[in-house]
Amino acid sequence: MMKLRAEDLGALARGAAVLGTGGGGDPHIGRLLAQQALKEHGPVEVVAVGDLPDDACVLPVAMMGAPTVMVEKLPSADQISIAVQTLAKYVGKTPTHLACIEAGGVNSTVPVIAAAQLGLPLVDGDGMGRAFPELQMVLPTLAGIEATPMAIVDEKGNRGVFDTVTNEWAERLARSATVDMGCSAIVSLYAMTGAEVRESFVAGTLSKCVSIGEAIDRAQQLHGDPVAAVVDELGGRLLHVGKVVDVQRRTTTGFARGDAAVDGLDGSQGRLLVLRFQNEHLVAELDGTAIATTPDLIIVLDTESGEPITTESLRYGHRVSVLAAPADERWHSPAGIELVGPRYFGYDLDPIRALETV
Amino acid sequence: MMKLRAEDLGALARGAAVLGTGGGGDPHIGRLLAQQALKEHGPVEVVAVGDLPDDACVLPVAMMGAPTVMVEKLPSADQISIAVQTLAKYVGKTPTHLACIEAGGVNSTVPVIAAAQLGLPLVDGDGMGRAFPELQMVLPTLAGIEATPMAIVDEKGNRGVFDTVTNEWAERLARSATVDMGCSAIVSLYAMTGAEVRESFVAGTLSKCVSIGEAIDRAQQLHGDPVAAVVDELGGRLLHVGKVVDVQRRTTTGFARGDAAVDGLDGSQGRLLVLRFQNEHLVAELDGTAIATTPDLIIVLDTESGEPITTESLRYGHRVSVLAAPADERWHSPAGIELVGPRYFGYDLDPIRALETV
Repeated sequence: MMKLRAEDLGALARGAAVLGTGGGGDPHIGRLLAQQALKEHGPVEVVAVGDLPDDACVLPVAMMGAPTVMVEKLPSADQISIAVQTLAKYVGKTPTHLACIEAGGVNSTVPVIAAAQLGLPLVDGDGMGRAFPELQMVLPTLAGIEATPMAIVDEKGNRGVFDTVTNEWAERLARSATVDMGCSAIVSLYAMTGAEVRESFVAGTLSKCVSIGEAIDRAQQLHGDPVAAVVDELGGRLLHVGKVVDVQRRTTTGFARGDAAVDGLDGSQGRLLVLRFQNEHLVAELDGTAIATTPDLIIVLDTESGEPITTESLRYGHRVSVLAAPADERWHSPAGIELVGPRYFGYDLDPIRALETV
Repeated sequence: MMKLRAEDLGALARGAAVLGTGGGGDPHIGRLLAQQALKEHGPVEVVAVGDLPDDACVLPVAMMGAPTVMVEKLPSADQISIAVQTLAKYVGKTPTHLACIEAGGVNSTVPVIAAAQLGLPLVDGDGMGRAFPELQMVLPTLAGIEATPMAIVDEKGNRGVFDTVTNEWAERLARSATVDMGCSAIVSLYAMTGAEVRESFVAGTLSKCVSIGEAIDRAQQLHGDPVAAVVDELGGRLLHVGKVVDVQRRTTTGFARGDAAVDGLDGSQGRLLVLRFQNEHLVAELDGTAIATTPDLIIVLDTESGEPITTESLRYGHRVSVLAAPADERWHSPAGIELVGPRYFGYDLDPIRALETV
């Protein structure tokens, strides 16, 4: 059993923003909120997926909505706990553990806040191994686990519960409610037993986030190459190094969608890498040819510091490195590709793996 | 205590369509569904508002959405009961009575179906004394009673519960869910004690619907004047007799909105009465001047038969009589006018009472 302390949150939030592949909201804000909760309530216990009792009652909790809005509309003090409590009351069970449903930005720290406030341990794992924009896009869906009953709450005190016939229906109803609630809300969903978590989760994500965050920090301290350190941690590869020359961004139907273009530097000047995103980066095209796609991870880092850059903070002139890294292998199954492959998002492309040669 | 039998439903549905002031959906469909339920489960007991025990647990139930859609997408066999059961489970109470939240078309017969299926008595009253298009527009809102917790269910098996900070927030979240669910859904809301029902309901609405329906029937049988019979029953007045010459209709954000123009006949030919509706008729203008507005009732009947005509069945060439009748006096209070007066619906008009002189 590991303990998560206020001083671990910097590394956790930084690593989570890397796995967040551009989405998940500003990691800084999530870190501040979680630090405040840990200072007030003490450290949170982190339990390995393999150590969960079969009959554990695990309630994941997350922020839903457009990251562009999340950075301006903070959750209220007890909103996150209320989401968990609303779901617990509806299903008539007492939660024994909380969990992250995705690894990414705010959604790696939001569950830390609830765990601290409610005095519950947190599972060291998540339902994706990265971030994706829609709520049915989790490995538990592939394992036949239902997203609902789910709870949704806003910072004004409005609460809702949905109990739907498919996980896609949960996404649809919760997305509309999120838009009504001001484009961000807290959700608790995919209530699972310990056995179900072991079957369907990616194990070790919180530890991995901390380890990625620490690797970036170490490289910065030692004047090393933080980008190379992240590539190493993820077993990924560097796609492109350059300067942001264009960003198109729009917040529609509760998502932050857009494209960004990165012109190469030095030898590769004139080679244009275009990133297409919907909360998260989904496709990377080099000179018009896709070279990496969802479900693999496409990550943008500040070239000098190695700090992860979310889609909403991409700016003209930013010097960035774009990398790709393999997703959990279950995402490459036919059902995984149907759920989160490029065609689901409207790109007429077969998925391209991060480690394929260009 | 009165019993509602299958043979009463013709008169009930017809009278409810009169009070529905153009909204509430096709009464014929509601009648058929209720007749089927009464044949299967036997008559439903109807309890006067004054006879309710203080601690009764009364759950109103209704169809929400665009009447234009309701006539094509019937509720599933158990959808209506499931809405009541979902709310009962959420509030942790056993309902003792069901009720209509509005008097109007389908929403006077939907609760009959649930009462028959669940073997519960029905309250002889409703929350409006007429029909209005949004769910906060009920006298219980004026009495400070909360719409939520509320349940919403669709015919596919999706269920939701909302618990909101205001009744306007309940409308907003439930309207979005209704649109997602295909523009019609069943809701159960405004859970009340018997004492609260006595304080905030319009008493006797179901009996009044039956009595209006029977008056139309009697006038038809005796070759009398069914339109005059309805004017008598309601204490209203005849505004205009003519022929429909134009109908503009659009289904937007879960409502059926539009306008209809009625040209006068004989002596009044050339005098144009325009009806403006959002599910229900809200304003009647004669030659460009408003002569009756919400909250009073504006009702369109077939001139010959006296049958009420819903906004979705208004057709070019239809010979119609337009009447106005006074609403429950509580609707004319300042708070009532703020909730359902012409300005709420975007008309820059003071309310005009049905019985004012033109």
